[in-house]
Amino acid sequence: MDYRKNLDEMPSYDGVEKDYRIKVNANESTMNLPPLVEERVLNRLSYIAFNRYPNEEYYNLVEQIAKNFSADKNQILLGGGSSEIIEKIFHAFGGAGKKIIYPQPSFSMYKIYAKAAECEGVPFDLDEKFNLNVDEFIKKIREVKASLAVVCNPNNPTGNALTVDEVEKIISLIDCAFLLDEAYVEFYGHSAVNLVKKYPNLIVARTFSKAYGLAGARVGYMIANPEVTKMINKTFMPYHMNTLSLVTADIVYQMRDEFIPRIQMTIAERQRMIGRLQSLRDVEVFPSNTNFILIRLEKADELNKYLENLGIGIRFFSPTAPGLKNCLRISIGTRTENDEVFAAIKNFLS
Amino acid sequence: MDYRKNLDEMPSYDGVEKDYRIKVNANESTMNLPPLVEERVLNRLSYIAFNRYPNEEYYNLVEQIAKNFSADKNQILLGGGSSEIIEKIFHAFGGAGKKIIYPQPSFSMYKIYAKAAECEGVPFDLDEKFNLNVDEFIKKIREVKASLAVVCNPNNPTGNALTVDEVEKIISLIDCAFLLDEAYVEFYGHSAVNLVKKYPNLIVARTFSKAYGLAGARVGYMIANPEVTKMINKTFMPYHMNTLSLVTADIVYQMRDEFIPRIQMTIAERQRMIGRLQSLRDVEVFPSNTNFILIRLEKADELNKYLENLGIGIRFFSPTAPGLKNCLRISIGTRTENDEVFAAIKNFLS
Repeated sequence: MDYRKNLDEMPSYDGVEKDYRIKVNANESTMNLPPLVEERVLNRLSYIAFNRYPNEEYYNLVEQIAKNFSADKNQILLGGGSSEIIEKIFHAFGGAGKKIIYPQPSFSMYKIYAKAAECEGVPFDLDEKFNLNVDEFIKKIREVKASLAVVCNPNNPTGNALTVDEVEKIISLIDCAFLLDEAYVEFYGHSAVNLVKKYPNLIVARTFSKAYGLAGARVGYMIANPEVTKMINKTFMPYHMNTLSLVTADIVYQMRDEFIPRIQMTIAERQRMIGRLQSLRDVEVFPSNTNFILIRLEKADELNKYLENLGIGIRFFSPTAPGLKNCLRISIGTRTENDEVFAAIKNFLS
Repeated sequence: MDYRKNLDEMPSYDGVEKDYRIKVNANESTMNLPPLVEERVLNRLSYIAFNRYPNEEYYNLVEQIAKNFSADKNQILLGGGSSEIIEKIFHAFGGAGKKIIYPQPSFSMYKIYAKAAECEGVPFDLDEKFNLNVDEFIKKIREVKASLAVVCNPNNPTGNALTVDEVEKIISLIDCAFLLDEAYVEFYGHSAVNLVKKYPNLIVARTFSKAYGLAGARVGYMIANPEVTKMINKTFMPYHMNTLSLVTADIVYQMRDEFIPRIQMTIAERQRMIGRLQSLRDVEVFPSNTNFILIRLEKADELNKYLENLGIGIRFFSPTAPGLKNCLRISIGTRTENDEVFAAIKNFLS
């Protein structure tokens, strides 16, 4: 069988996750949709033409998003989560000889997307506090002649963020395409999306999976200038989005104000958890602008196993993940869940 | 902006379709889900964890499909319609220097998928009656040293079909991978899926979009030997399927017997329509094993416009589509819809 060159080197993704009692390992919202939103979503789903290929549902959502950002419809593309958006952008700027640069540690899929795009992924190391040296990053982007530079802001899994000024500094001093992955921006509050008007090479990716609690529906979007959008659109095949997810995201976006109290609760709980974790000896707690907290402690492996035995799922990083040795990432859940997670960690340490 | 090589040559897909009164242009089921099925689907959707990434829903559907075909779970992959399945298979056997061969005219996306996979698409002409010369096709596959040969059976948009013996002849005499696209097989009744056990290079693609009336949900699947499935799986990124579509397809598959009367009605209506169309002078009617009929007449362009003005959408082929000059494809609708379409065609001709 004559497979594509290097296909055998690509990883596979499968396997079912454990059924955790408290699942704070994937930065999901731990609450299902607000009841009022869910009611309207289910009502809308009952009007779907299941038998018809998706049609205007895509553009209805695009129009809403465009309006919200005072952008034009042809500046918006939708994808299966921001994951697919990012995968396609990597593809659009990839291919033999191309280089895509991204900070490390950051979203672990960047490396895979670069591989899938058959180009060279160039990781740029964050410092020991996980800060990005903006000047050095710019220098490196130019030096390697990257076709695309990527920044996740706020950054997953470290939780810290660049200011909008820092983002603008990067974008203003590079010529290549710049992808700003704002998957967690609702928990930070400082989006750089308005810079799209000013910089023709900026692409901002957003998702419904985190703050809007729709990880199951797989909907994300990107905003860029029309010339860029037009090119990225060529990487998508017809009917890549399904009607059910599109109408669900459409209702959620219409009712996005309903999520504000949850986002505020998540931010408040995050700060409360940071304070409590900081009170523990031997645990290094990193500042967070997201819906999760990164901690570092020597017994990370043991703590992870201890929590797992209690039915608590948190994110443990492989010992080979660059920069993340002994780190654990804990998503913010409800107050009750957070209290239980904290109590368990405290118990483990004493 | 440093885009991927040749990306600018790829087409884009957008635009909203006209709102036809009778829509028989896309080989969809013209009826929504059977009421009992829809009720159970909507009920299942009300139990979804919208906030969680898809998890066991993928494997639940895989298990059902595997059981139905007496296959192993690791022989099945799911995708966003058979479209995505086919796109990924092309990718897996594509890349620089590779050749993918398919009959022409056939599913128009094969050409695009080959382009997207950055390999050479090699069309093999059907004869003037749209029959495939099996011996010549085999010869050509070997001659060009194709990495993948593709056959849509029954064929879209011509409606005719190879026998299972003819399919087996091809697969038994070639060494490369062979993709059998069975999108319309439920209207034909003769699947070659059992040959997967015998031939390690056979991949069969199926869809929920046609006979099972789920075009809006974007769910398809493939069956192949585990070694092949393992490689194709590497082309899919994590969470490429969404929970809503997965549980919908799961219920539909559980209740697939509910679709048998519809499939039988479609076949009966197809034969009735073929008979009536054959009674018209100046219209060539091609035999069909699908849920559509291909006709050829000199005034195809005018007829298409005439029907469009009546709110009837049928499929017109661009004059540059190889082999399809003056051809029109009409999907089978309900009896009432078919009667109206036929009356309109008759009116136009007289």
